[in-house]
Amino acid sequence: MKKGKLNAITDVTGVQVGHVTLEQKLSEKEAVCTGVTAILPHEGNCFEQKVPAASFVLNGFGKTVGLIQMEELGLLESPIMLTNTFSVASVLQGTLNWMLAENPAIGDSTSSLNIVVGECNDSYLNSMRLMAVKPEHAEQAIQNAGTDFAQGAVGAGKGMICYGVKGGIGSASRIVEKEGLSYTAGVLVLTNFGRKEELAIANWKKDDDAPEKPDGSVIIIVATDAPVNSRQLKRLAKRAAIGLGRTGSHVHNGSGDIIIAFSNAVTFPHKVQHAFTQEQVLRDDHELMNELFQAVIEATEEAVYQSLLHAETTEGRLGRVIEKGEFNH
Amino acid sequence: MKKGKLNAITDVTGVQVGHVTLEQKLSEKEAVCTGVTAILPHEGNCFEQKVPAASFVLNGFGKTVGLIQMEELGLLESPIMLTNTFSVASVLQGTLNWMLAENPAIGDSTSSLNIVVGECNDSYLNSMRLMAVKPEHAEQAIQNAGTDFAQGAVGAGKGMICYGVKGGIGSASRIVEKEGLSYTAGVLVLTNFGRKEELAIANWKKDDDAPEKPDGSVIIIVATDAPVNSRQLKRLAKRAAIGLGRTGSHVHNGSGDIIIAFSNAVTFPHKVQHAFTQEQVLRDDHELMNELFQAVIEATEEAVYQSLLHAETTEGRLGRVIEKGEFNH
Amino acid sequence: MKKGKLNAITDVTGVQVGHVTLEQKLSEKEAVCTGVTAILPHEGNCFEQKVPAASFVLNGFGKTVGLIQMEELGLLESPIMLTNTFSVASVLQGTLNWMLAENPAIGDSTSSLNIVVGECNDSYLNSMRLMAVKPEHAEQAIQNAGTDFAQGAVGAGKGMICYGVKGGIGSASRIVEKEGLSYTAGVLVLTNFGRKEELAIANWKKDDDAPEKPDGSVIIIVATDAPVNSRQLKRLAKRAAIGLGRTGSHVHNGSGDIIIAFSNAVTFPHKVQHAFTQEQVLRDDHELMNELFQAVIEATEEAVYQSLLHAETTEGRLGRVIEKGEFNH
Amino acid sequence: MKKGKLNAITDVTGVQVGHVTLEQKLSEKEAVCTGVTAILPHEGNCFEQKVPAASFVLNGFGKTVGLIQMEELGLLESPIMLTNTFSVASVLQGTLNWMLAENPAIGDSTSSLNIVVGECNDSYLNSMRLMAVKPEHAEQAIQNAGTDFAQGAVGAGKGMICYGVKGGIGSASRIVEKEGLSYTAGVLVLTNFGRKEELAIANWKKDDDAPEKPDGSVIIIVATDAPVNSRQLKRLAKRAAIGLGRTGSHVHNGSGDIIIAFSNAVTFPHKVQHAFTQEQVLRDDHELMNELFQAVIEATEEAVYQSLLHAETTEGRLGRVIEKGEFNH
Repeated sequence: MKKGKLNAITDVTGVQVGHVTLEQKLSEKEAVCTGVTAILPHEGNCFEQKVPAASFVLNGFGKTVGLIQMEELGLLESPIMLTNTFSVASVLQGTLNWMLAENPAIGDSTSSLNIVVGECNDSYLNSMRLMAVKPEHAEQAIQNAGTDFAQGAVGAGKGMICYGVKGGIGSASRIVEKEGLSYTAGVLVLTNFGRKEELAIANWKKDDDAPEKPDGSVIIIVATDAPVNSRQLKRLAKRAAIGLGRTGSHVHNGSGDIIIAFSNAVTFPHKVQHAFTQEQVLRDDHELMNELFQAVIEATEEAVYQSLLHAETTEGRLGRVIEKGEFNH
Repeated sequence: MKKGKLNAITDVTGVQVGHVTLEQKLSEKEAVCTGVTAILPHEGNCFEQKVPAASFVLNGFGKTVGLIQMEELGLLESPIMLTNTFSVASVLQGTLNWMLAENPAIGDSTSSLNIVVGECNDSYLNSMRLMAVKPEHAEQAIQNAGTDFAQGAVGAGKGMICYGVKGGIGSASRIVEKEGLSYTAGVLVLTNFGRKEELAIANWKKDDDAPEKPDGSVIIIVATDAPVNSRQLKRLAKRAAIGLGRTGSHVHNGSGDIIIAFSNAVTFPHKVQHAFTQEQVLRDDHELMNELFQAVIEATEEAVYQSLLHAETTEGRLGRVIEKGEFNH
Repeated sequence: MKKGKLNAITDVTGVQVGHVTLEQKLSEKEAVCTGVTAILPHEGNCFEQKVPAASFVLNGFGKTVGLIQMEELGLLESPIMLTNTFSVASVLQGTLNWMLAENPAIGDSTSSLNIVVGECNDSYLNSMRLMAVKPEHAEQAIQNAGTDFAQGAVGAGKGMICYGVKGGIGSASRIVEKEGLSYTAGVLVLTNFGRKEELAIANWKKDDDAPEKPDGSVIIIVATDAPVNSRQLKRLAKRAAIGLGRTGSHVHNGSGDIIIAFSNAVTFPHKVQHAFTQEQVLRDDHELMNELFQAVIEATEEAVYQSLLHAETTEGRLGRVIEKGEFNH
Repeated sequence: MKKGKLNAITDVTGVQVGHVTLEQKLSEKEAVCTGVTAILPHEGNCFEQKVPAASFVLNGFGKTVGLIQMEELGLLESPIMLTNTFSVASVLQGTLNWMLAENPAIGDSTSSLNIVVGECNDSYLNSMRLMAVKPEHAEQAIQNAGTDFAQGAVGAGKGMICYGVKGGIGSASRIVEKEGLSYTAGVLVLTNFGRKEELAIANWKKDDDAPEKPDGSVIIIVATDAPVNSRQLKRLAKRAAIGLGRTGSHVHNGSGDIIIAFSNAVTFPHKVQHAFTQEQVLRDDHELMNELFQAVIEATEEAVYQSLLHAETTEGRLGRVIEKGEFNH
């Protein structure tokens, strides 16, 4: 399938990604090697202009925040934030601070606010107990957001490990076209899963010295500009699991494998102006739906590989080093 | 059905409840009127000795944290914390701090940690945007926990409103007995839902001046010492929804109505000692299961009423006052 | 709330209900005491014009057919059929026969067909093992459908028992109105659940001779002409559970308590004409949504009572008699 | 991973598989080309000795029967039956007849009976509207069951098409071993999905004349003798989706992709003898659980391929022929 211009989630018009990367050797034993990544669903105010969204939990050994309300209402009303497992509270707080500042009316009258934060455990490299991520880092990640963003060992991906080598942030996109219609599906992954022997690439150079680290996790964000509703977005989210599986994952017990999908084809205003919403929705049985499924599968698979291709060798706590993955030529 | 000695969730042996209540008039407009409540599933280390647990989302307009992993593994490994909507991050952080201090091994090697926090929106009385709840309040609530605890406008219930009058924390319990077996089901609720005309008590004195506040929420915690597994606990959680409905709730659109159920009949050690767990589980078709269902329904219904009966008239921000509910005699 | 003209599910324009009742004493021991009930979602061809639909399983000890595809696509494309537990295959076959005859194209080219059948166990009165319901009875029930239909011990309700007295088919409706908009919510129940001591009516005359029969079931059909989508219909379905709970049910272990909700405000054509569907959907946060919730709760509660009020004393197999419920005056 | 002796689902001790294959040219246009397959979970009476079970719906465009009660109680109490879409009623009826004959007490007193039937749409080759499958064919399939069974275009697989070539029944197994423990995971698939260009085998000879048939389906049965409960079996079922995805499937809109998993390590008696069940359950965090995940992924992937390798070129209605798949050497 055709790729988008950037081959990234930001090929979906309006989507922006921002990072804050934290890196500091504190002592022989301790090192900060972590960060925050923000995915903005569109260029406007996320709370005032909500987007349809859904999630699929492939394996729920994870601490992602905000999926309950998304499931009930089928809406996303915040940026999607990614960080390490012990920084969920900090990032939740920082995102709340930022959104309250942006939206003076929230919480002063009738509204609450649902924020989505996903996480992976980077404690092999990062001194996670030190909780170096502060609420302001979440705000900075949001402010750093743009369409051109780094991949690999950056942002929330700074300390992550995937298939025994350095993982982190990866992204890819695919374009579907038919009958004059054209839509983009973009995927961003935070990869922190898999053992070296699982990776499904033929010419992959297995590193026999790869650490025997515990089961990790992966967070997958699917964005599209196709006009699909929350029920259909859950279908897209399930296809991302298929794409993940193709990279070789066994979806280990201890892995939090969680997919969040949204469409920004249409936004739903927070304020009630009418009794009704008017929705134009792609038919499930239109061939473009099958092509969107394929697009999500392919983009997810490639996004995982992109996370490996971009991630540089990284040193973390206890002098531990995780190498960049290598391919035989 | 027979009630427990305390007619409270703490009739389930080992369960403890603690509050921190925050109350301060800051200015003509602003007031702190909120708090934190902690429910400890047993007297030991929650992380080292996990308990089977499950949840049921009756209406998902809520921000409860920690249910994904509970659903996957069927286990609770933290206290259950309750607070206001904008203090979830703070309470999550404080509980994490406390649990990391208690468990030096977590996060330093292979483990992560899943914390459960529920919330209701107390912004009618409480200056919620000021976020007066700090992480240390979560720790204090845990440390304050005991079997004898206050109900009504205390802890997380300080600023809550239910059926147009003062709501908050309520609790009740029921005992089931058969064939020499005896089990307790206890319920604790955080009530912040319903309109004055909905309450299903015949002799309730409707307050015509009750504020037209937006839809609220209710968090329901079900505890039992019956040997039931996570699948069965989900069944108990659904029965709590029935008990809630009997008090008159219409389960409004904007209400986060979430039920969490656990059993402390058995605990599962964090550390692997054996390949297997040995579980003795009550048969679904044993009559005691139906009685447990009834016990949960009755205890939930009464717990809601207890929250009204205990809650004192409370003044909050903007000079707003929510009256204690009254019954005609 | 205001009731519809018929106070029945058929107050939702287009909805029709038909019964076939089977009753025959075969011997001292055996008796046929059962039937089939068909609920048609609108007056057109159900397959060609599908309607949004959803379900909620309150307690899944039941054999209802057809919910998987309804959940995936959010659509109902058949009548909803009700019968006894051992006649699901027969009714499924008969409905398939009827729909294939009505739709010559199905199965000859690209289409399959998803049929919904619900059931309760009437084996206390009915010789259920004899399987007296034949496929043609399903077809007849569909052909018998109209807006004026009998309640009580008729159709699928012929042999059912509820709260220790005669149950069966019940129905009720409520109208919600606001800002010039007016919608109807109608409910039809097949009641076969509950013990005599559970019924939540103050002046109910408990029959001490009521049989100690095993846990039964209840199927609840919710219809509306409000423009709501499948996600919202699941919300309505959950409110029906609240209404059921108000009648006194403990939702026993062995009870299949299943709710199916549909809207016929809009229909979706089977044949693809456009890439998109255009949907006008009631906003979740519009006050009419809360009123629809209340309408479903009230109509469900009353429908259960209507099933008792209409059901006449019935004799079944083994000379067993189930009395009509009585109220003290 | 190591394969079982038969490399089939029947490597799980006690599991048996039986087919009835129906094949008849009726006219130039019409042909019977279909069948029934039965999977027996153990050698005893399925109803009297139930096994833990769970399901996962990857894509719910399907008509599988019996999953609701399996989800609620976590138990399978019938053979798992497979057939074509329009024969679900017939096979449900036949299985009911057989089980009622085997179990005289069911339905005569307190019990009901939950039967599981899965299906795919074989209408490209089979004159599905003629409904050639009769209830007695279900009984015969059960009676034909043994550990040595045919694969390919047999039983329910007779008329199925997969990746543009002949599909049908496939099976594979894997053995996991650690610390003196050894368990088998076996998979049986009914393949009727995918387009020729999707198949993920490098040396696959794409047939340019493969019919453009509509989206199909796949039913995947996972069996194990590992002591896992229903919650864990749902985890296994999700891994089967990963295995399926590896073969190349895009999980099309119109595909009913449904996975059912059971363990026969322990059986649960229907009759109540004690208040409790005693369960020995493999710990989720034991390495054998991850290996079981891998075993299910690998066995599912291979089972799909086995269905292609075994299926012979088949002629059906309208003179249509589906070729056996070929590999380049």
